[in-house]
Amino acid sequence: MVRAAIYGASGYTGLELLRLLARHPGVEVTALVTRQDDLPRLTDVHPSLAGRFDLPLENLSTQEVAERADVAFTALPHGASAATVSPLLEAGLKVIDLSADYRLKDPAVYAKWYALEHVDPARLDSAVYGLPELYRDRIREASLVANPGCYPTSAILALAPLLKANLIDPQGVVIDSKSGVSGAGRSPKPNFHFPECNESFSAYSVGVHRHMPEIDQVLSDASGKTLEVVFTPHLVPMDRGILSTCYATPASGATAERLQAALAEFYAHEPFVHVGDRLPGTKDVAMTNNCSIAVRMVRGRAIVVSVIDNLIKGASGAAVQNFNLMHGFAETTALI
Amino acid sequence: MVRAAIYGASGYTGLELLRLLARHPGVEVTALVTRQDDLPRLTDVHPSLAGRFDLPLENLSTQEVAERADVAFTALPHGASAATVSPLLEAGLKVIDLSADYRLKDPAVYAKWYALEHVDPARLDSAVYGLPELYRDRIREASLVANPGCYPTSAILALAPLLKANLIDPQGVVIDSKSGVSGAGRSPKPNFHFPECNESFSAYSVGVHRHMPEIDQVLSDASGKTLEVVFTPHLVPMDRGILSTCYATPASGATAERLQAALAEFYAHEPFVHVGDRLPGTKDVAMTNNCSIAVRMVRGRAIVVSVIDNLIKGASGAAVQNFNLMHGFAETTALI
Amino acid sequence: MVRAAIYGASGYTGLELLRLLARHPGVEVTALVTRQDDLPRLTDVHPSLAGRFDLPLENLSTQEVAERADVAFTALPHGASAATVSPLLEAGLKVIDLSADYRLKDPAVYAKWYALEHVDPARLDSAVYGLPELYRDRIREASLVANPGCYPTSAILALAPLLKANLIDPQGVVIDSKSGVSGAGRSPKPNFHFPECNESFSAYSVGVHRHMPEIDQVLSDASGKTLEVVFTPHLVPMDRGILSTCYATPASGATAERLQAALAEFYAHEPFVHVGDRLPGTKDVAMTNNCSIAVRMVRGRAIVVSVIDNLIKGASGAAVQNFNLMHGFAETTALI
Amino acid sequence: MVRAAIYGASGYTGLELLRLLARHPGVEVTALVTRQDDLPRLTDVHPSLAGRFDLPLENLSTQEVAERADVAFTALPHGASAATVSPLLEAGLKVIDLSADYRLKDPAVYAKWYALEHVDPARLDSAVYGLPELYRDRIREASLVANPGCYPTSAILALAPLLKANLIDPQGVVIDSKSGVSGAGRSPKPNFHFPECNESFSAYSVGVHRHMPEIDQVLSDASGKTLEVVFTPHLVPMDRGILSTCYATPASGATAERLQAALAEFYAHEPFVHVGDRLPGTKDVAMTNNCSIAVRMVRGRAIVVSVIDNLIKGASGAAVQNFNLMHGFAETTALI
Repeated sequence: MVRAAIYGASGYTGLELLRLLARHPGVEVTALVTRQDDLPRLTDVHPSLAGRFDLPLENLSTQEVAERADVAFTALPHGASAATVSPLLEAGLKVIDLSADYRLKDPAVYAKWYALEHVDPARLDSAVYGLPELYRDRIREASLVANPGCYPTSAILALAPLLKANLIDPQGVVIDSKSGVSGAGRSPKPNFHFPECNESFSAYSVGVHRHMPEIDQVLSDASGKTLEVVFTPHLVPMDRGILSTCYATPASGATAERLQAALAEFYAHEPFVHVGDRLPGTKDVAMTNNCSIAVRMVRGRAIVVSVIDNLIKGASGAAVQNFNLMHGFAETTALI
Repeated sequence: MVRAAIYGASGYTGLELLRLLARHPGVEVTALVTRQDDLPRLTDVHPSLAGRFDLPLENLSTQEVAERADVAFTALPHGASAATVSPLLEAGLKVIDLSADYRLKDPAVYAKWYALEHVDPARLDSAVYGLPELYRDRIREASLVANPGCYPTSAILALAPLLKANLIDPQGVVIDSKSGVSGAGRSPKPNFHFPECNESFSAYSVGVHRHMPEIDQVLSDASGKTLEVVFTPHLVPMDRGILSTCYATPASGATAERLQAALAEFYAHEPFVHVGDRLPGTKDVAMTNNCSIAVRMVRGRAIVVSVIDNLIKGASGAAVQNFNLMHGFAETTALI
Repeated sequence: MVRAAIYGASGYTGLELLRLLARHPGVEVTALVTRQDDLPRLTDVHPSLAGRFDLPLENLSTQEVAERADVAFTALPHGASAATVSPLLEAGLKVIDLSADYRLKDPAVYAKWYALEHVDPARLDSAVYGLPELYRDRIREASLVANPGCYPTSAILALAPLLKANLIDPQGVVIDSKSGVSGAGRSPKPNFHFPECNESFSAYSVGVHRHMPEIDQVLSDASGKTLEVVFTPHLVPMDRGILSTCYATPASGATAERLQAALAEFYAHEPFVHVGDRLPGTKDVAMTNNCSIAVRMVRGRAIVVSVIDNLIKGASGAAVQNFNLMHGFAETTALI
Repeated sequence: MVRAAIYGASGYTGLELLRLLARHPGVEVTALVTRQDDLPRLTDVHPSLAGRFDLPLENLSTQEVAERADVAFTALPHGASAATVSPLLEAGLKVIDLSADYRLKDPAVYAKWYALEHVDPARLDSAVYGLPELYRDRIREASLVANPGCYPTSAILALAPLLKANLIDPQGVVIDSKSGVSGAGRSPKPNFHFPECNESFSAYSVGVHRHMPEIDQVLSDASGKTLEVVFTPHLVPMDRGILSTCYATPASGATAERLQAALAEFYAHEPFVHVGDRLPGTKDVAMTNNCSIAVRMVRGRAIVVSVIDNLIKGASGAAVQNFNLMHGFAETTALI
């Protein structure tokens, strides 16, 4: 039984993680760590966990956590996460970090987009980007996994195989993404006040969203060439789900069928990624760790549409998938 | 042209009031009064008013308002409202107060339910409760109208005619009400954060909601006997609308048909209240000043269902209806 | 490994059942039975099952099913269900029937409310009403379990313990219930067309809903006295969840604390029913098999509020809970 | 007083048209024409019109309509519309056609995209495309106005001024559009069944949507060069609103500021189109005839975001605006 500690259990990704781990036969959650002074009962924070977990939220030191746990899931704000992860690794734990802190390889890029000097730049190189479909073997060996962002997951799964196969031009890619509101976290803000965002669809952070350099980096790696995408996020009045509509220039002679075949082949043995003819909706993958992808060719432009559940495949499901790989469990454990 | 000032224009009732007044041929809005230090542009606060109003929000004194306006609509928090209304009346304006400050006749009841000593108790007697269907003649003569609460409007319109006709027992009335989220105002709070209240239906403030004594008072007046209702509010994941399901013991021999006929007769000449066979939904009256009512008799219990738009008939539409009565306009002006 | 057949897999309860059974370590789903001529792939009907089930929908005879399965879950329309269940039982299978066909004990009551002569009235007596919190021991021994209706589950769990303890008057109970739209099934109808029911809250079938006699029957059994409830269903613009607000006259001297204590004691060892101080919302139990209950006393009236997920505790979760009891699995298997 | 007949009053555009015309001081609606045999009361079809209109739906001949009306609004399915419009024009009425029948100039393009031979091709040339911001003068003189499609309105208003000013490349334009569900009409279908499309975001008709050639035609006219756009529609789980995110290659040296300035100048005197810095959401224009536009430049790609209410500026509001132009009313009459 692997003993797990969770930092940041009171947010939406924390809730989702606990839901999934409650079903995992090889995990015992032994600590819920918070830095807050008031320590509410977990079921006051997440009533839907009633009957599943009876753990207290505790303000524990690294040392206390190290005594109780073999692995830590850190779902903390960027900056705070790196400050927490570093001592945990030194204390011998494995870490799956759900923040953005270890995703970008270049500390200068991190500093620019997050307006923050990285506190643990030496580990950026060895941290493994936790997208099993691209980096499974390295995840198996990793002690620190940087769990991917939700938007990047949807975009990278749609595009990386086509870039690897040279079926689309690495330049000029446009990713028009749409996300449910849980992606914005649990802190009340005017934009997310129900009567403001219900029945409204909006664009936000166009050209300045922090997931853009993350997509650049991973797709550049897939492509073998440095590329920059245009990424446009939108807010959908629903709880969960991301749909990305990706536009690219196809390689000469590449048809929709050929693109679809390349994707299907790439994901042929993947348990969670499905390529099909039908244009997917986010509800097709809601409450699952799945990603569903379809391809169209319109007037010479390749269009790849992908959907995920932002809280599962886009966050906590991927974290459990990574956990399974790191600890030798079947990859789908707790995820079906 | 009647010149109108609006206090509290930045909330949802303020927005709705401005939308309605924009269509009123006999009103000119001459002042938007705020106590805030920063003075945003109105269309930054309410983008949907673009092209309709170009007024600034201003921090004006009572004297300045009195020079510009003949009537004031006050949509302020309770307490703050009475402190504002009193000098406006002394300066000679008519006032339609959308807060709760002048609804309750007894300052002790106000003090108990609002946890606040009333600052202007002397006017409670002369303030007219602004429900035209019950108090039209008094509203015509009033200089201060207390615009009804949203829940009370839905409950009182359903029950007052039956109490007046002695068709239901004044004792033992249960009002099970359901409201859209705009009724909670525009301030972000955890309960109204989109991913918390979307896709969730909940009860709240059961037995302690401030609209309960307001319903008591007006229904007691209709009945001629002191009565107390059981009032249970619920939150519906939608923007606007209230449905009240009211349960009462029918008088001996009273059938559903007789109750429906009494309601239909009472409202026969009302432009905004409709009594029908079909059980209504809130969308039947959304964006209108209408109230729709239906009756059922189930196992000896009378059930009266009423629906309104909480922001219109339950707030700003009623305010405009009262304004029309106070200033001699056709009652439906700007409300069709 | 218990082999299970499912009838009616293409509806919402069918989907939910498959989701739950996919996680059950002691069940193998061996047949998805349909009477339709076209036999779509399961993932065309339920895209979210991609990667979980690869079974075909098949038009199988009872004999064929009997060869493949030990137990059948029947999620068919009333009438059709009884005609299917009867031969399955004769072929030796256990059956968990999610329709209404075996819930009512009196065929005359069935005939009146369902406008249909029952085709298998002889079994009504021996069928066990599948609410484990009331009938656990009988469910363990049953070969035919009538899975409760969704509204009845929410109302009965709220009220039965109070009736058993003589803490509320069996007469005069009012149940004001609110349900998400999935309760209406998967067939498109004008009332459930998105732009009609979105952003609208409505009452429907007041006094004529078929769950009313079901509630009568089970609460009469709990009370020991014949009683009739007033039941008022409403439609909430959300996918899933039921909240019932139940009104009753408390026994002399019964306080809110005493009622809450009685409920808490009754459910002290139940894994899925939780009694608390906080008024619950449906999201507190969404995607769980839980029921959450709170009590208030307002002006001499007892108010009990309960919430469930209509598709889980109100349908498929309860079916799996019953299955676990009938087959000797831990009651919470696949339900956490 | 202009007398107006409405065909297709029972749909969503019909409802919106009636709401707007109810406020128009210069219009009397004199006929609601249907081809249905059963003739329901208008308030059974549209309960929210209670108290506004008391007209019957009638199955009237062209001759009967001609006797009662000066102008007809036709909100019928394509094909049916042209068959109705042609005799109305011959009888001397002006017509505002809300269908697609008179939008495309080339009958071969119509035949290809609508899979239908046009029944009235001779009028395609003289019909005026009813977008006042581009064709105001011609609309004033027109007897037949083809009211624009909802998606085309949002895309054309965003792009036409930039094409006219040669600030973007006419080739390679991508329009990623998102619409509320009312755009799909009022007929129940599986895709629009509440529990299917609620909480889901999906792409549909990618590359095959009939609004694509309409956008091509009008933008080609604006550009002076034949162009073809890539148009990708999506379905948003909300009632109303369209947001289009348009991607184009800027002309050499064109900055975001210059593009925004060109749009602002083009629409400087337009009452309904607003260009601003803030990225808009659909709620900013909900229930209004407004279009709001913002510009961004990201990594060398121009992004223009526009929002409209699909039922108002995208349908019935535009129809009333066109009506106002055709009959000499102030253009904003009934639209504020």
